[in-house]
Formats: sequence, C-alpha cells, structure tokens
Amino acid sequence: MTEPSRLSRQIEFLVEIDKLKHVVRQTWLMDGSRRENDAEHSWHLAALALLLGEYAAEPGLDLLRVLKMVVVHDLVEIDAGDTFAYDTVGAKDKELREQRAAERIFNILPTDQATEIRSLWNEFEARQTPEARYATALDRFQPILHNYYTQGKAWRHHGITADQVIQRNRSIAEGAPELWRHVVGLIRDAVEKGYLPPGRTGTV
Amino acid sequence: MTEPSRLSRQIEFLVEIDKLKHVVRQTWLMDGSRRENDAEHSWHLAALALLLGEYAAEPGLDLLRVLKMVVVHDLVEIDAGDTFAYDTVGAKDKELREQRAAERIFNILPTDQATEIRSLWNEFEARQTPEARYATALDRFQPILHNYYTQGKAWRHHGITADQVIQRNRSIAEGAPELWRHVVGLIRDAVEKGYLPPGRTGTV
Repeated sequence: MTEPSRLSRQIEFLVEIDKLKHVVRQTWLMDGSRRENDAEHSWHLAALALLLGEYAAEPGLDLLRVLKMVVVHDLVEIDAGDTFAYDTVGAKDKELREQRAAERIFNILPTDQATEIRSLWNEFEARQTPEARYATALDRFQPILHNYYTQGKAWRHHGITADQVIQRNRSIAEGAPELWRHVVGLIRDAVEKGYLPPGRTGTV
Repeated sequence: MTEPSRLSRQIEFLVEIDKLKHVVRQTWLMDGSRRENDAEHSWHLAALALLLGEYAAEPGLDLLRVLKMVVVHDLVEIDAGDTFAYDTVGAKDKELREQRAAERIFNILPTDQATEIRSLWNEFEARQTPEARYATALDRFQPILHNYYTQGKAWRHHGITADQVIQRNRSIAEGAPELWRHVVGLIRDAVEKGYLPPGRTGTV
C-alpha cells in the first residue's frame, strides 16, 4: 500500500474535524433557541481572544498562539464528548477519554503537525503559560455571558448556584483579572434577578 | 446619559455576533445531516488556515492576520445574509447590503477596534494582499470539500455544473496553487462519479 500523501492526510483531518459541529454543549445560544456546539463555541472564543487581549493578566501575549490554541482546544471532544463544567462524575475519567481522543484524532495529520496540535492542546490544558491562562479564562468567561444573557438557562436547568459558579470559574482572575471582576458583577446581578440561586454561603 | 464603558461595548459586540450561529449557508455538513452555519464555517476555515499554510502562493504569510480575517470575514452576513456563491441575482446588491451591515455591526465596538475589524474585512474582500488571497482561497476550498464529501449535495440541489464550479473558484489558484490542482482533481472525480454534471463545455 502506498503511504497517503501529506495533503491527503491534512484533508482527511479537516474532514474528520467537521464532527466538532455535532458536539453539543450545555450552553444555550444568546436567543435561547437551541444549545451551542463546539465549533460555534470555538469560533466565538477566537473572536473574544481577538478583542479582549487588553484584559490579559500579562501584557505582550503571543496572540497567534492563543488563536491556534482556541481553534483546536475542543477537538478531543469529537470522541470524548463535552463534559459539563459542573459534572463531577464525568470529570473523573475525562482526562483518560481526552488523551485517547487526542491520540486518534491528531495522528490523522502528518507527524510534524500532529505534534504541533498536541502541544497546543497540552499547553491549553496545563494553563502554565500566559497565553494558556488567557485562553482558558475566555473559555470560562464565554459560557457565563451566555448564561447571563439567557437569564441563567443552563444554570437553572442544572440547579447550579452562585457559589458553584464562583468556585468553578475563579481561575478567570489568573488569566484576565478585569474580566473576572466583570463576572462577579454579572453573578451578583444574576442572583438579584433570580437567574441564579445564591447557594449555601449566600454571599457572592 | 453616560457613555457605555469600553468593556460594555466589547461585550455588546460579542453578544451581538452570537447571531452568526443562525446564518445558514448552502453547504451541508460532511455527514449530510444539516446545513452549516457561518460560525461553524468560520471556525473550520481557521483550522484550514492553521494547517494549510505551506500551500499559500507566497511564503512568509502573517498567519495572525489570516486568522483574524477568517474569524471576522462573515460577520456582515448577520444583517446581509448568506449569498450563495452561484446566485447572480443576490450578488447584485450584495456589496451595498454588506457595507450597511459593516457600518452597524462593527461600530458597536470602541472606535479603534471597529476600525481594525473593518480594515481586516476590507482586506479580505479586496484580495490584494497575500494573506487575503490565501484566506479567500480557503473560503472557496472549504465548501468544495463539503460538496465533494456529501456527493455533491448542494451542487445537485442547485443544479450547478462543473464548468460553473471551475469558473467560480478559479481564483483559488492565486492564493494556493496546489490546493487548486487538488480541486480540479476532485471536480473531475465528482463528474465521473455523477455528483456534478459536466456543464456546457463538457471538459474539466
């Protein structure tokens, strides 16, 4: 058998990742009409990354690497599925499922590109660089916006409380402190408006 | 009235562009289950841009600018709608509709960012830079892949012929010559397999 050409492998990968458009998230679109999928979410994050760079915790970010990370950050969910942020059961084997998915999906590409994409994904997941902290902050910020502007649709559906939202998303402060202050304001407002019950501690 | 803060305008814009997820294109997803929307398409293009840079006509592209262009290139369709590539009637007032949309949508942003996004969109549309020629080549290449892998679903639905596909997409050669050669191969194969009638000239 002849080895498929470099371009064939690249196209096979680009055809394969079309499946990201079928991975449905818990987040509802801003008009509440349906849930968002991972491809739409990844595009939206890229727009956030492009426009909110001035709020990154550390100046002088490599925005190209941020955008690359954002584009590929959810690809493993083609196999592993979307694990809801507040799903503690699903979180347990999430890493194993995602590592297996990375192995299969990224290796459709020629080796050099498989290595690059794997490295971008690892960087995003590890949150050890300013670029990854900014990108992951946006990844948490975006669904909060969607929740707030749909009057807490996914929060209410899953019985999430304000203290859970705070606890789960506090790391936004490490990547984009001013956006975190904005989030705290949104959560307070959401509690006041009844989109989000305050939770056990009762303070935001 | 107090002027909305910079962050408020940025968030208003990011909420507004959620509507791109509702702009449905003529392209079908690879599994033929439904048509693609502009947000999904824009994400997919970003992945193509990231992985196919070696095929760009001119070396040393500014990939960051390519990715920025790709992320914003369809935003005007929130107001102007998607004009099918082969729709000669819709094409007539497309520019006017899109200019009006750009005026409204981009100006939700703070002035400096509105100017940047407008300039990226203008650059994409004008196809005068290597980055824009590469980005627009991918914008034409991607739906051809979708058409080919859905056995010509949108082509057949609209009665498109091979010579129309060639005519309409020839400019791919200016941005990415090797991808154009691949496209010509796909079109030949699509004609052979009966996904696409050859058209008047009968030659591909």
